[in-house]
Amino acid sequence: MDAAEFRRRGKEMVDLIADYLENIEQRPVYPDVEPGYLRSLIPEEAPEEPDTYEDVVKDIERVIMPGVTHWHSPYFYAYFPTANSFPAMLADMLSGAIGCIGFSWAASPACTELETVMMDWLGKMLKLPEDFIAGTHGQGGGVIQGTASEATLVALLAARSRAVRMILASDPQRPETGITSKLVAYSSDQAHCSVERAGMIAGVRMKKIPTEQSDKYAVQGETLRRMIQEDKAAGLIPFYFCATLGTTPSCAFDHITELGPICNAEKIWMHIDAAYAGSSFICPEFRPLLNGIEFADSFNFNPHKWLLVNFDCSTMWVRKRSDLIGAFKMDPLYLKHDHQESGRYFYTDNSLFRSLKMWFVFRMYGLKGLQDYIRKGSNEVNETLLKRINNGRKIHLVPCQLSGQFVLRFAVCARTTESRHIREAWRLITQLAEEVMQELPH
Amino acid sequence: MDAAEFRRRGKEMVDLIADYLENIEQRPVYPDVEPGYLRSLIPEEAPEEPDTYEDVVKDIERVIMPGVTHWHSPYFYAYFPTANSFPAMLADMLSGAIGCIGFSWAASPACTELETVMMDWLGKMLKLPEDFIAGTHGQGGGVIQGTASEATLVALLAARSRAVRMILASDPQRPETGITSKLVAYSSDQAHCSVERAGMIAGVRMKKIPTEQSDKYAVQGETLRRMIQEDKAAGLIPFYFCATLGTTPSCAFDHITELGPICNAEKIWMHIDAAYAGSSFICPEFRPLLNGIEFADSFNFNPHKWLLVNFDCSTMWVRKRSDLIGAFKMDPLYLKHDHQESGRYFYTDNSLFRSLKMWFVFRMYGLKGLQDYIRKGSNEVNETLLKRINNGRKIHLVPCQLSGQFVLRFAVCARTTESRHIREAWRLITQLAEEVMQELPH
Repeated sequence: MDAAEFRRRGKEMVDLIADYLENIEQRPVYPDVEPGYLRSLIPEEAPEEPDTYEDVVKDIERVIMPGVTHWHSPYFYAYFPTANSFPAMLADMLSGAIGCIGFSWAASPACTELETVMMDWLGKMLKLPEDFIAGTHGQGGGVIQGTASEATLVALLAARSRAVRMILASDPQRPETGITSKLVAYSSDQAHCSVERAGMIAGVRMKKIPTEQSDKYAVQGETLRRMIQEDKAAGLIPFYFCATLGTTPSCAFDHITELGPICNAEKIWMHIDAAYAGSSFICPEFRPLLNGIEFADSFNFNPHKWLLVNFDCSTMWVRKRSDLIGAFKMDPLYLKHDHQESGRYFYTDNSLFRSLKMWFVFRMYGLKGLQDYIRKGSNEVNETLLKRINNGRKIHLVPCQLSGQFVLRFAVCARTTESRHIREAWRLITQLAEEVMQELPH
Repeated sequence: MDAAEFRRRGKEMVDLIADYLENIEQRPVYPDVEPGYLRSLIPEEAPEEPDTYEDVVKDIERVIMPGVTHWHSPYFYAYFPTANSFPAMLADMLSGAIGCIGFSWAASPACTELETVMMDWLGKMLKLPEDFIAGTHGQGGGVIQGTASEATLVALLAARSRAVRMILASDPQRPETGITSKLVAYSSDQAHCSVERAGMIAGVRMKKIPTEQSDKYAVQGETLRRMIQEDKAAGLIPFYFCATLGTTPSCAFDHITELGPICNAEKIWMHIDAAYAGSSFICPEFRPLLNGIEFADSFNFNPHKWLLVNFDCSTMWVRKRSDLIGAFKMDPLYLKHDHQESGRYFYTDNSLFRSLKMWFVFRMYGLKGLQDYIRKGSNEVNETLLKRINNGRKIHLVPCQLSGQFVLRFAVCARTTESRHIREAWRLITQLAEEVMQELPH
């Protein structure tokens, strides 16, 4: 296939993609196939001579689609959302064509630099402390990882390396394996399984902190403090705590304003995993959920979940870039270049031009557009709903304004109101809300 | 941007990509910028309101291109090749639109299944032993990783887990940290820096095996055997050897036919890293370089380097799937599904639909097309060259046939031939070869 044919086939593929996404609602969201279904549909070996492109395209519907779980169907409510937007897809096309491997600044300066600046843009949207923004006097900055699991592991390894260095500084004779075998990391018993796996990979003890339904499954400061004291008394070395903002099973938020100071006092690395919920912090009304970030050593969330940037794009910030560099430094001659020591460019594994997707999405939506997407509804929609409710004259309520949001304010006022009245009111509000939503432009 | 606008913008992007790749030769291959060049070219924060798409596209030339190292320029000779083909780009567009996260069979059966079968197709192209092919009675199979560095690490972790299990089986009371601290892994002193980094991540000793220029920098069986014996005598536990076929500095090939039996006898996991050179093994004349694979526990190479499948696509095979599953098994309820125990589907992290790229590329080139790409020249080209040489009547030679290849056979025959004659002949052959190559269709 030469460039001329690619012009034709590429445009056909654009239409195929648009058709797929416009009509995705008609497809069954979960495939009706048994394990092994695909093998019998295609040959056992690659063809000797090329197939025609027409045959390949025909096989998308014959072979692939019957086995696809359609994550972008509006009927998909499993696992978690994965982002998918047209601007991000356009950026991905460009990124594939440039196809540079950005493992150092010199390997493609634009790749490293756009990533640094996009991480600053996003950090500012989240109102992260200045320490985490590369373009300041702070020592931190952001880097894109593939997944939150990777970020958890990278933070754990950096923490392990920092802990070993600190102990060796005061006790240079102590054998390193003797230190590692005493290290202990913590996370909630509600944390994602990848946190436990990170401990397995790094070969360190990982303890689960028990949580209670009565605390909404959040880790409490008192529980962590007690475990640290017991472990220290037993000769162990606490060095890492992975807090979760929005756990996988129930979207629990650990109390990081309580937990952060404990970690800081004990020189324990606090990593915050907000993989799914993190995107919402760009809205001022949700930003308080991130309070306590000022105590963290590292923080991560996934724009590829809920911020319209296609997979993969997991954004991670560290308070001190040198903690990451120190943990993974390798200096083979074939990776050296003239600007090696330029402190701001510390990325070692930005293998793809993933920042292009962020740039396209942030610019094509604007901060307001992204906030609207998180809110999935604007002040105007709420106003319309209220008007509809009050025009119906069955129930009556008034609005209020909270942090710039138009809020429907429901007060139980009459002496004669019973549960059944409230249930009926709720049914009516829900029904009208559905009508309003269906009238919205797609 | 809605689907209708995407149809228009997507087609424009296809043309932009085709223009970029058709004219890439005119761009300077290495950018003339200083660190920090990009930050001053764009705003310090994301826009509140959306930018226009026209502005975003204009900024590709203004902001991005001046800082791009053009990996696909024909003048790019740094690092290593990274694959880029039109069929792979088309597949990537489709993969981005489907946008499924294939972390289990149920998360998108087609994703898991196509990967299994494509790994079998590629394994058969390489004539891997049946043990490594999933669709046989063997216990092995292939899985796509992001990079060879990841594959090295995954193999090391699986080996560590297997070693600990074997030792605990004979000595159940031994503490696990006591075992890990005695483990020792090996690789060539020529191996890529990611091998050393894998040891750091896993927290195990990694020893470099010295190589000699006189051995063409290949690891010798005798050297490995001696190191193992010394380490065992010192109470250490050898458990992992990473062999390299085609090292980064000089493309050295470790002697795996010698090294493999030593590893097997000592129950040491042998991983073979053929990141760059591996693609060539699809040609029968290069396949002997892979002899010894029958002793390996795992094997990896990068189709995203030299087999026309765009980054990322690093293919890894294991002899026993259960070694990988055992090392990383996690069973949270939210990942359980009805077909959990279906033995053939063991992939836990195939996050992207990367097998689509393999499928498109294998079908659009066919095995022969891929072999031609590796050879970068066909028997016909060699025949044309020979004809041209002999027609010139200045020098004369005859061909021979070696493993299906048309080979130009140069024998020094006359009593009166001196060095200067041979140099002159070589100059003529080179000149004619260049002419022939330039006449080829692009």
